[in-house]
Amino acid sequence: MAYEALKQTVWQANQDIVEAGLVEMTWGNASAVDRDAGVMAIKPSGVDYDTLAPDDVPVLSLETGERVEGQLKPSSDTPTHRHLYRQFTGVGGVVHTHSHYAVAWAQAGRAVPCLGTTHADHFYGPLPVTRAMRQEEIQSDYEKNTGAVIVERFREQDLDPLAIPGVLVNGHGPFAWGADLDAAVENAIVLESVARKALDTYRIHSDAGPLDRALLDKHYLRKHGADAYYGQE
Amino acid sequence: MAYEALKQTVWQANQDIVEAGLVEMTWGNASAVDRDAGVMAIKPSGVDYDTLAPDDVPVLSLETGERVEGQLKPSSDTPTHRHLYRQFTGVGGVVHTHSHYAVAWAQAGRAVPCLGTTHADHFYGPLPVTRAMRQEEIQSDYEKNTGAVIVERFREQDLDPLAIPGVLVNGHGPFAWGADLDAAVENAIVLESVARKALDTYRIHSDAGPLDRALLDKHYLRKHGADAYYGQE
Amino acid sequence: MAYEALKQTVWQANQDIVEAGLVEMTWGNASAVDRDAGVMAIKPSGVDYDTLAPDDVPVLSLETGERVEGQLKPSSDTPTHRHLYRQFTGVGGVVHTHSHYAVAWAQAGRAVPCLGTTHADHFYGPLPVTRAMRQEEIQSDYEKNTGAVIVERFREQDLDPLAIPGVLVNGHGPFAWGADLDAAVENAIVLESVARKALDTYRIHSDAGPLDRALLDKHYLRKHGADAYYGQE
Amino acid sequence: MAYEALKQTVWQANQDIVEAGLVEMTWGNASAVDRDAGVMAIKPSGVDYDTLAPDDVPVLSLETGERVEGQLKPSSDTPTHRHLYRQFTGVGGVVHTHSHYAVAWAQAGRAVPCLGTTHADHFYGPLPVTRAMRQEEIQSDYEKNTGAVIVERFREQDLDPLAIPGVLVNGHGPFAWGADLDAAVENAIVLESVARKALDTYRIHSDAGPLDRALLDKHYLRKHGADAYYGQE
Repeated sequence: MAYEALKQTVWQANQDIVEAGLVEMTWGNASAVDRDAGVMAIKPSGVDYDTLAPDDVPVLSLETGERVEGQLKPSSDTPTHRHLYRQFTGVGGVVHTHSHYAVAWAQAGRAVPCLGTTHADHFYGPLPVTRAMRQEEIQSDYEKNTGAVIVERFREQDLDPLAIPGVLVNGHGPFAWGADLDAAVENAIVLESVARKALDTYRIHSDAGPLDRALLDKHYLRKHGADAYYGQE
Repeated sequence: MAYEALKQTVWQANQDIVEAGLVEMTWGNASAVDRDAGVMAIKPSGVDYDTLAPDDVPVLSLETGERVEGQLKPSSDTPTHRHLYRQFTGVGGVVHTHSHYAVAWAQAGRAVPCLGTTHADHFYGPLPVTRAMRQEEIQSDYEKNTGAVIVERFREQDLDPLAIPGVLVNGHGPFAWGADLDAAVENAIVLESVARKALDTYRIHSDAGPLDRALLDKHYLRKHGADAYYGQE
Repeated sequence: MAYEALKQTVWQANQDIVEAGLVEMTWGNASAVDRDAGVMAIKPSGVDYDTLAPDDVPVLSLETGERVEGQLKPSSDTPTHRHLYRQFTGVGGVVHTHSHYAVAWAQAGRAVPCLGTTHADHFYGPLPVTRAMRQEEIQSDYEKNTGAVIVERFREQDLDPLAIPGVLVNGHGPFAWGADLDAAVENAIVLESVARKALDTYRIHSDAGPLDRALLDKHYLRKHGADAYYGQE
Repeated sequence: MAYEALKQTVWQANQDIVEAGLVEMTWGNASAVDRDAGVMAIKPSGVDYDTLAPDDVPVLSLETGERVEGQLKPSSDTPTHRHLYRQFTGVGGVVHTHSHYAVAWAQAGRAVPCLGTTHADHFYGPLPVTRAMRQEEIQSDYEKNTGAVIVERFREQDLDPLAIPGVLVNGHGPFAWGADLDAAVENAIVLESVARKALDTYRIHSDAGPLDRALLDKHYLRKHGADAYYGQE
């Protein structure tokens, strides 16, 4: 019973994403990593949120993916989470949901453009969408390959995963992350909000342009980085 | 008082569809069948959900449609439910609602395309819509004929009712079903969710294509059938 | 203190329309008539719903419009309600709100077409919209003239106010009514629901046709009139 | 501890805008001015609403912007609020949120047209949108310049800030105000409501015209000004 704090954190985040309205049915999972211990913990597969207890949270080796603690099978999306932790080394928590507006953009195969300061306060540019997966990527190691196309998109566009802490998987839905799991939950909430705001903006003006670069810089940098002046610190 | 468990199941499901937000006013009814006993039970017609008690649930002969237990008239949609049970022999429960987004697609006379993995996880292809009914089908035996056009659509397109456990009745609204009534309730909830997701996907990209066949297979089959690996079993 | 029951009914309905989600701020008012006594009662003007008590409900002469009981000024929309009672002699209750979707259709100046059976179950044809009011109708006796353009629309199109128990006032919002105030409240709720369903139907298929006449007849007449067979009576 | 009443008012309003559904995360701030004392009070920056206490509310000099009471840094939007108080001398309270529909119009860079009486009851004409800010206005004194472009829009169009008590900041979101902070909160709620109603009106009829001038006058003036006859006074 070595990972009480990690399992508690993961259990809490899985409650928080339900509370925030991001989860229908059992469609969502949150995970966290303990890099010093070389393990990650994630929601078990297909379990109802209201019967889930912290001790039900399985713990896995980050290296091998094998379960090191817990009786229940981890989420079927585990290989995606694990791939993200292994490739995005600054990431401490990952959240996957089927939240409505993010799914709509993912199903449309479109990146969410940065149309306003709400977006710019949290994501330093458009929310990218992955390319369609190839048949062989789907048929074998599908969940790991889902992580691979996310990482490919970030590498290809030279994006910093901590500056743009979320993505839409084409035809599927959003993944969000952060330096820790609390930040990942916040980013999952904001991702859904800006996806909704962008959709209704286009309904008013289908050619609405992206936010000016100067405003994007101003808003992102007043909350993040060395010269941030938002909040109490 | 022979059918306590059946009536309790039906009563509970009629509460569950309200709780799930699928029902406005009294527009919804859930039923279940006991094939060994040759009976079905269904919500009574036009009764408020909050005054409904399990003993109010009428029980009918599956063969003749005659009431065998209960004081109240069954839902006016009973002949539709009964026709489905008689034609779709693997079905154990049926749910009909006027849930908003499913009704919008039904009123538009359009099938809900499979645009993403949320849909593919539960329905193995588009949600079909029935053809418009003919005047004589409306004027005589309307509710039974509603069932008949559903069955016609499934037969015509060679669809398996347990792989695509729901339908839109043209100009009317959704019916969902399942191997038992719990599954039917879940499918009614998911049907509404994917109808909403499809609508907003088209608002972002009016020509969004259907999900790749390989992804549809992957998602449906990882939750259903012999090689399923989702959940704890 | 002669009209306790009437005031209680009106008070309750004004709570019910808030509970049903039809009212933002103080934008809504319900009234009822007692034709034997020659009086009507209506919500007072600009009073918060949660501080309103049954005894605050003013009672007016149906003939003269003068207050016969109560300390508070009646709703500024009172002359509209009174005109409807005087012209539509089968009406026992009237509800006015600024419910969202009905307002959107009213602001668009468009009647809500009958696109499905939900609509047909309650309204025997499209929900009409009044013509734009003329400058002199606005500047003098505005609220009474609001009633007059409603009545004009029903007379002109030869509509039965009890078969189509609601209307959209152009650029303004919905009025609904019924044989009694309970029916008026129900019709106000359904009017909002079918306005929303019609809007989303058009988003899926902008040329969605009206419901077949045979289906309109079937659904309206199975709930209303001599051959009705819906519900327990 | 000289400004108890002012801080209490500001604290309450910051709770009220959350309760009214205008605030996601911590995106919103309400302030009030005491012109006799030459001070304003505003929500502190980036603090959760549910841990905020009245004594946490910082008080600032209206003249210099310097903090005169309180331990916490004021909202980063403080210079915008302060500029509005200094330029719009009849204003007693200001509310800024990222409420969904108002943000969608702001991101679209479009004024909200007056399409109905709900709008006309509260805003005496379209809700204006500011021009895009220039790079130098963004990079230096951004928050004060946000106030400046608001004031510029009102001066340029010769608008009375108390007759049109709100604005959309281009690419950002709404500010609302009023003679006191209660009125500002109410105006922020109504601004969001009419932004939503306008959007859905355009979805039904993309060329819906503005409300007739005579109706705009009638509705605005029956609630405001010398001849108002709405409410109990």
